[in-house]
Amino acid sequence: VERSATSRRYVRAVTAFTVEIAGEDEPDAIGRLLHDFNIEYEEVTPGPEALAKRITELIGAGETVVLVARPGPAGLAVLRFRPSIWTPGLECYLAELYVAPERRGQGIGTAILEAVLRIARERGADYIDLNTSEDDEAARHLYEKFGFVNRERGDGPLAYYYEREL
Amino acid sequence: VERSATSRRYVRAVTAFTVEIAGEDEPDAIGRLLHDFNIEYEEVTPGPEALAKRITELIGAGETVVLVARPGPAGLAVLRFRPSIWTPGLECYLAELYVAPERRGQGIGTAILEAVLRIARERGADYIDLNTSEDDEAARHLYEKFGFVNRERGDGPLAYYYEREL
Repeated sequence: VERSATSRRYVRAVTAFTVEIAGEDEPDAIGRLLHDFNIEYEEVTPGPEALAKRITELIGAGETVVLVARPGPAGLAVLRFRPSIWTPGLECYLAELYVAPERRGQGIGTAILEAVLRIARERGADYIDLNTSEDDEAARHLYEKFGFVNRERGDGPLAYYYEREL
Repeated sequence: VERSATSRRYVRAVTAFTVEIAGEDEPDAIGRLLHDFNIEYEEVTPGPEALAKRITELIGAGETVVLVARPGPAGLAVLRFRPSIWTPGLECYLAELYVAPERRGQGIGTAILEAVLRIARERGADYIDLNTSEDDEAARHLYEKFGFVNRERGDGPLAYYYEREL
């Protein structure tokens, strides 16, 4: 689809947003977004209030960073850091990346992921990983656009994510 | 392949081993195994000495547990714990699981994974995840035997693992 420079500028103007690190003072909106995320993907959620409390504890403990796209917030990312085994740096796990349904298609996911990579590097991470679903084409396209690969050594066999409850 | 009860007992007798939590006092063998692991899978390694030092630091910091199959050690697992977002419990990441090539086919991987699940539960984890390669049939069979799934909601689309350096 081709669009003129004029219409593109217009689209940008009406969808202005910024991506910033969330403080501990706005947990309610974060809890709500995380709750909506799991409802949409049919996963269990303890509810927005419990999530707000939990995320405040995690941010306070220092190894979790939440990014929010404002105004709204229209989307968020949850990053988790820990020391790497293989290098002296940190590894970062992109635990959650979510854009509210009514705000999709406006470049918010791209802006959040750009901020994720920048902030992960700033915090000392030299590696980042995540998991996503085969059928989530939008997410996979976004991750691949930013250099994430789901194959061993770049072009080898697929890398699978396995999980189970205990 | 059918085997008599007698020969099965014999096989067990000559391959006796135990799986235990490694102390901070045996980093050299762990460093060597982790190094061998990455060499075998053509991944970068900082060398056995650097890995021994690193793993000692991680064990000391408290959120990393290493299990070793003795004697040898013939294999190991590295577990990493952190608070979950979605529940009040911990989540456990099975970062590494390795059996020395000359000790494979003796049930050591199974015994290590049994211990992984038991110790993860004992430490308060209610969830465990890992990633592995599409073509590592032995590993995938082992994980699936223990109830790990690589599909959304058990039978949905595949779950992919994505990574990149920063």
